[in-house]
Amino acid sequence: MTADLTALAATLPDGALLTDPDVTAGYRQDWAADPNAGTPLAVVRATCTEDVQAVMRWATAHRVPVVPRGAGSGLSGGSSAVDGGIVLTTEKMRAITVDPVTRVAVVQPGLLNAAVKRAVAEHGLWYPPDPSSFEICSIGGNAATNAGGLCCVKYGVTTDYVLGLQVVLADGTAVRLGGPRLKDVAGLSLTKLFVGSEGTLGVITEITLRLIPAQSPASTLVASFESVQDAADAVLAITRTMRPAMLEFMDQASINAVEDSVRMGLNRNARALLLAQSDAPGAAAAAEIATMVAACESHGATEVFATDDPEEGEAFTAARRAVFPAVQALGTLLLEDVGVPMDALPRLITGVEEIAGDCDVLICVVAHAGDGNTHPLIVFDPTDPGEVDRAHLAFGRVMDLAVALGGTITGEHGVGRLKRDWLPNQLGEDVMELTRRIKTALDPDGILNPGAILK
Amino acid sequence: MTADLTALAATLPDGALLTDPDVTAGYRQDWAADPNAGTPLAVVRATCTEDVQAVMRWATAHRVPVVPRGAGSGLSGGSSAVDGGIVLTTEKMRAITVDPVTRVAVVQPGLLNAAVKRAVAEHGLWYPPDPSSFEICSIGGNAATNAGGLCCVKYGVTTDYVLGLQVVLADGTAVRLGGPRLKDVAGLSLTKLFVGSEGTLGVITEITLRLIPAQSPASTLVASFESVQDAADAVLAITRTMRPAMLEFMDQASINAVEDSVRMGLNRNARALLLAQSDAPGAAAAAEIATMVAACESHGATEVFATDDPEEGEAFTAARRAVFPAVQALGTLLLEDVGVPMDALPRLITGVEEIAGDCDVLICVVAHAGDGNTHPLIVFDPTDPGEVDRAHLAFGRVMDLAVALGGTITGEHGVGRLKRDWLPNQLGEDVMELTRRIKTALDPDGILNPGAILK
Ligand SMILES: Cc1cc2nc3c(=O)[nH]c(=O)nc-3n(C[C@H](O)[C@H](O)[C@H](O)COP(=O)(O)OP(=O)(O)OC[C@H]3O[C@@H](n4cnc5c(N)ncnc54)[C@H](O)[C@@H]3O)c2cc1C
Ligand SMILES: Cc1cc2nc3c(=O)[nH]c(=O)nc-3n(C[C@H](O)[C@H](O)[C@H](O)COP(=O)(O)OP(=O)(O)OC[C@H]3O[C@@H](n4cnc5c(N)ncnc54)[C@H](O)[C@@H]3O)c2cc1C
Repeated sequence: MTADLTALAATLPDGALLTDPDVTAGYRQDWAADPNAGTPLAVVRATCTEDVQAVMRWATAHRVPVVPRGAGSGLSGGSSAVDGGIVLTTEKMRAITVDPVTRVAVVQPGLLNAAVKRAVAEHGLWYPPDPSSFEICSIGGNAATNAGGLCCVKYGVTTDYVLGLQVVLADGTAVRLGGPRLKDVAGLSLTKLFVGSEGTLGVITEITLRLIPAQSPASTLVASFESVQDAADAVLAITRTMRPAMLEFMDQASINAVEDSVRMGLNRNARALLLAQSDAPGAAAAAEIATMVAACESHGATEVFATDDPEEGEAFTAARRAVFPAVQALGTLLLEDVGVPMDALPRLITGVEEIAGDCDVLICVVAHAGDGNTHPLIVFDPTDPGEVDRAHLAFGRVMDLAVALGGTITGEHGVGRLKRDWLPNQLGEDVMELTRRIKTALDPDGILNPGAILK
Repeated sequence: MTADLTALAATLPDGALLTDPDVTAGYRQDWAADPNAGTPLAVVRATCTEDVQAVMRWATAHRVPVVPRGAGSGLSGGSSAVDGGIVLTTEKMRAITVDPVTRVAVVQPGLLNAAVKRAVAEHGLWYPPDPSSFEICSIGGNAATNAGGLCCVKYGVTTDYVLGLQVVLADGTAVRLGGPRLKDVAGLSLTKLFVGSEGTLGVITEITLRLIPAQSPASTLVASFESVQDAADAVLAITRTMRPAMLEFMDQASINAVEDSVRMGLNRNARALLLAQSDAPGAAAAAEIATMVAACESHGATEVFATDDPEEGEAFTAARRAVFPAVQALGTLLLEDVGVPMDALPRLITGVEEIAGDCDVLICVVAHAGDGNTHPLIVFDPTDPGEVDRAHLAFGRVMDLAVALGGTITGEHGVGRLKRDWLPNQLGEDVMELTRRIKTALDPDGILNPGAILK
């Protein structure tokens, strides 16, 4: 250990600073397995806000980069380690208190999303945002990426539930932004600025979450289609008139990958599958399901199945959540999360099919279709250099297509390092410049997650 | 006209630059009638983004302050004119286009909130945020203040519906932030930063709004109470278990002010009145109303009236909206919009009663009770210097009380100039410093709405 690291260790609890390369290697990459991830100097497992402050003060004094890290389930290389930097993980910070009268939870960032949901459910409350990774991602990572999920089509994304934050700034100052107030416009919207900032502006050490009463039991619909265009058109027909509590899309390759790994009895011959839910209260759920059934049938659905049994519905949702791991079994992945304005959804989905053909790579597509956010998953054999090149070509072309359709290169996973080079194409030079001005104002030495979002 | 102003006029359409003192006087104050409002050099009625850019380029070149202005219905002195500055009003910028498939509207900032609601209703769509001032405030002002309203307790505030903005920065650069995508995490959350920035970071020239399907017809409940504590307790009992579509509070003074001015048949003897709505679909509305009736009755309601007739319900809502103008008839007002965590609502409301007694001034209280956001309206006779002093004392003490209860000095109207001196007390010096860093990064010459939010 260098003298400097020893000084840092002295300000931290025993065992918080890790330098054993076998251990720190486990903190080099997120779920996207960024091949360019660096080798960190050390990993710090913070136990409290003060530990985070100690790290940031030390890092500022020594101009050492710090990569904040939650559970490492990110899909954009946002928490890839930086050579010679500190990986600052929140995994030990998992406290939560729930206040059912005020209807908020105050949570440390390392708690997993699923644990937040469970803790609030004990009070008859619900924290809606539900990334497919909810069992393996931290609430701090969710706030840092403004994570989306399946029910977000009706219930909104993470930022809609973050009332307040405690954030440690680059120089080690800890600030409290917002708080347990449902409406608060005192000063600039700083809480909202830090949500989705991917660790580039500060380290989130506490989150105040807005909760809502428990969701009504959901009714579920599954519809099969002979073409992705039909399915995409059905999505538009649904979202024009109503707000389903979930509206997911799976293409044939995804269906089959799931069937190969979990055997759900999905129709392997379908070219596309829609999975929708209504959680409207009482008889209204049946009415919403009927509307969606009609929309699917009038857009060529070959098979439509509906159930008001929540467990049966949950099994289908689990199938949808199983897509990422199942597709991963097919090869190495480049994961996209491009989104478009709703009216461009059919063109995006059919455009991705064309890119797969042109580039001669397998692209499985699943989508949070109800909000125009799709996940083309590019599968390739890492030992075949030609295929690797074609996969990377497809990766860029999918983002270019989304931007050409007025869309976004990232609807929920964040820019991280892997989509960074495409960001200026979407935002334009003026907005990049604005972004840099804010980054510089808050992190003048550029030590917070350097390389994420901005070069 | 000075030579400089002539140069500015030359870059603008005919008639856009106004310098006649009789005309510009009408742009000196907002609805709060800030006595310290300055005298502007000129007023510019921009007709398009390019006009706004011309003003900002000129203002940067000449270091002249610019106060952006919508419809001037603000209640915090946010658009008070600055001596020697330009008032830049968006009142001529009123175009709107609605896309029912993508379910967004693209709106110029000067369009009134009510006109936005009407335009989207033609497509069977709904733009929820409904400040009581919806007939007299602009959508740009709503975005700049992150306005709330009556249905926000269930449907959220302005920021929840702003998908994208066009903003002209201090130097005249026009940037596009976000866009018609329901989910988009590409880059920092800049759209959200500009929402609620009260004209201090840029001038909003276009807004992309998220729309939702038309609301179901609402059922309405009115309950009278013999004490404000009972009514506040009933509010908590309701919000613990469900999400009403509206949950408003009026105290006795407000009830009587409304009866004096509109004669609705409200119970003048009630110490407090709650007004609640459910817009749950079908039979679920009756169930929600029943839950709320039970909560009111078990907390001492003396009279409870419920109706599923939307017109009858709308009449009560109109009564609630009539409070501000009605109370204004009683004297000059100091308007508050303090908010607290829900569990502190009873203490805030009873605490305001005590402050009124201590300071010997009339304070009428109405509240968006369901989200803990209250409007103590301090009424005073401007010709009685002692009462003026006592009113100002009460104004500060109400904000101090809110902060002491973990609340906010402003839940929806913004800080503007009138609440500015209390902001550091709520945010603390570190957050003020963070705010200044961002302000300086975006408006280095400090020409955008100087004196609002920050000194
Ligand atoms: C199978 C699978 C399915 C997924 N499905 C979804 C989905 O449906 N929706 C969705 O949005 N995402 C999804 N993801 C992506 C991922 O789970 C989310 O991005 C999640 O929010 C990351 O949380 P994490 O704790 O793992 O963060 P990490 O991966 O550790 O970090 C993510 C980013 O946040 C920053 N960060 C983490 N913690 C903090 C902190 N306390 N302060 C400041 N910055 C911090 C990091 O620097 C990094 O930039 C999925 C991932 C997998 C593996
Ligand atoms: C009777 C009455 C009831 C009210 N009820 C409510 C309520 O329920 N909820 C609520 O939130 N408010 C309420 N208000 C306050 C007010 O209507 C809101 O703050 C509204 O959003 C202001 O809009 P405006 O167009 O009148 O803005 P203005 O008063 O003209 O300006 C308000 C602020 O926004 C800035 N601004 C305006 N336009 C722009 C722009 N294009 N770009 C940048 N900055 C801009 C100004 O500089 C100023 O700081 C009420 C007001 C009245 C008179």
